[in-house]
Amino acid sequence: MSSLETPSYASVLEAADILKPVVVKTPLIESPALNDKLGARLLVKCELLQKTGSFKFRGAYNAISRLSDAQRSKGVFAFSSGNHAQGIAYAASLLGTAATIMMPEDTPAIKLNNTKGYGAKVLTYNRYTESREELGTRIAEENNLALIRPYDNVEVISGQGTTGLEICKQLEEKGIQADILAAPCGGGGLMAGISLAVKEKSPETRIFAAEPEHFDDTARSLALGEKCANSGDYRSICDAIVTPTPGDITFPILKRNLEGGLVVSDAETAEAIRTAFSYLKVVIEPGGAVALAAYLSGKIDIAGKTVVAVASGGNIDPMLFSEILGEKR
Amino acid sequence: MSSLETPSYASVLEAADILKPVVVKTPLIESPALNDKLGARLLVKCELLQKTGSFKFRGAYNAISRLSDAQRSKGVFAFSSGNHAQGIAYAASLLGTAATIMMPEDTPAIKLNNTKGYGAKVLTYNRYTESREELGTRIAEENNLALIRPYDNVEVISGQGTTGLEICKQLEEKGIQADILAAPCGGGGLMAGISLAVKEKSPETRIFAAEPEHFDDTARSLALGEKCANSGDYRSICDAIVTPTPGDITFPILKRNLEGGLVVSDAETAEAIRTAFSYLKVVIEPGGAVALAAYLSGKIDIAGKTVVAVASGGNIDPMLFSEILGEKR
Repeated sequence: MSSLETPSYASVLEAADILKPVVVKTPLIESPALNDKLGARLLVKCELLQKTGSFKFRGAYNAISRLSDAQRSKGVFAFSSGNHAQGIAYAASLLGTAATIMMPEDTPAIKLNNTKGYGAKVLTYNRYTESREELGTRIAEENNLALIRPYDNVEVISGQGTTGLEICKQLEEKGIQADILAAPCGGGGLMAGISLAVKEKSPETRIFAAEPEHFDDTARSLALGEKCANSGDYRSICDAIVTPTPGDITFPILKRNLEGGLVVSDAETAEAIRTAFSYLKVVIEPGGAVALAAYLSGKIDIAGKTVVAVASGGNIDPMLFSEILGEKR
Repeated sequence: MSSLETPSYASVLEAADILKPVVVKTPLIESPALNDKLGARLLVKCELLQKTGSFKFRGAYNAISRLSDAQRSKGVFAFSSGNHAQGIAYAASLLGTAATIMMPEDTPAIKLNNTKGYGAKVLTYNRYTESREELGTRIAEENNLALIRPYDNVEVISGQGTTGLEICKQLEEKGIQADILAAPCGGGGLMAGISLAVKEKSPETRIFAAEPEHFDDTARSLALGEKCANSGDYRSICDAIVTPTPGDITFPILKRNLEGGLVVSDAETAEAIRTAFSYLKVVIEPGGAVALAAYLSGKIDIAGKTVVAVASGGNIDPMLFSEILGEKR
């Protein structure tokens, strides 16, 4: 068991060892036709093909596997907008522990049902009026459950970081280096973990956090040099990453390793989902498509460059996907 | 250059050498949740992630690369319902030769536009009233173009067979063997090629051709022991595989290596597309989803077994995909 207080490249390597037998080494794909159109080489890391349909399985499994047997016998608790919930629920089932998950009332049905499908007990809360941190901490304490936070958890961040290790290895196998890497950013667990791996293996790669409009807390926090919050008055289709502020553990890492944030509108995200459908043949959920959207909508100059977008998940309700495909292009 | 008159395991290995630097080794994916639901282990070979969005690039590239420089300087010709067209067009562009493609008038717009996008010249014909074989042969001869048939071509079949080699290798890496393998079958190029590899590497695997209702010429031909044709009075959403009869080169191979055919309705195919969307997060076109559909709709007993479905392509118009997602389940 690791006693680290902050994740590091070493803790990401440790996580990689633990995860090796259970995670999918997701492909890093590209489309020659899309590359031609963009005048760049764009590689998409398909975490939508990860178990449970998102990268969250990595951190969840790493965190639960490091609990003591005594802790695991009591069960684990998580609050989550959906993908962390599924990751925890499935990892718990593999590791023989009971999971209780608190999810927002407006979570897409697919995520609620899948979480229950992996055998977890599900509670709901109102994400706009209740503090999941306060409510969740209290419920976990009252029931003696190990609370596994979605991003402010060293083992979770280290697990997510294995995505970055894989990207570096896959680029190396192709004999190329990334000029730019962007990933979707909510609380920053994926982003921080990936940055630990990428800064070590490919220090010249410029790293950016991608976020939806009105939920650009990380972009603004990076610009200001200190954590700031979103107003809470807005909605976004990017349900997976509408977190209030960067995390306490994640932000110092992001501040050290990232160049800044890229912010996209929901319309730009929808266009990225359509592009992924047409050129890449994969299903990306809105929150998973913001990094791709940032490139496609020209938020950063990629001409002539090799760039990586992490597509972090694919758990989107069929009706929403159908609507997005049907919208005017 | 190979002078084989019929493809063999050896010619598939030769093709694998030629294709190694250019094809995507497409992933063999599975969903733990879907496996649970089915009570089987289902692995899906994602040729939708192949360059040009279907396996056809393999055979096209292999065939064009084996033409003489003199032949390549005159250009190549193909007739195709769409995916072979895109494969030829893109392979031709990589190998520096001009491609002319004759496609059915009712080809999905995405396939027509992509073929043009790869730089090919496109002609159209009526697939219900004109013989593409007669018309195509005449045009190719008149213009001194090398005709590359979609399935009755040794190098094309050998190239498609590399899909089977990859599947066997991927299963070996996972330490498992397939009890059953099914792939979509039109003229039988993919099916024949795969069977050459699988019968050599895993002789106990039972191999089946999957086809749409009313286009079950292969299933009926295998049952009868001789080639028979479809009536031509029907339509199917499976535009990629609505060929009239098994091929002259492919059928003897199918007869030797296959156990039979599995026939699915368009509704079953649509349900398979939805299942792939929800559980696997990939986009499969109708003609590419029939093998998956055969398993999901219970056309063969898979309980407790390890089974492979080849998902042969992902080139589906967004409006059709949107409609399929929106249909009642």
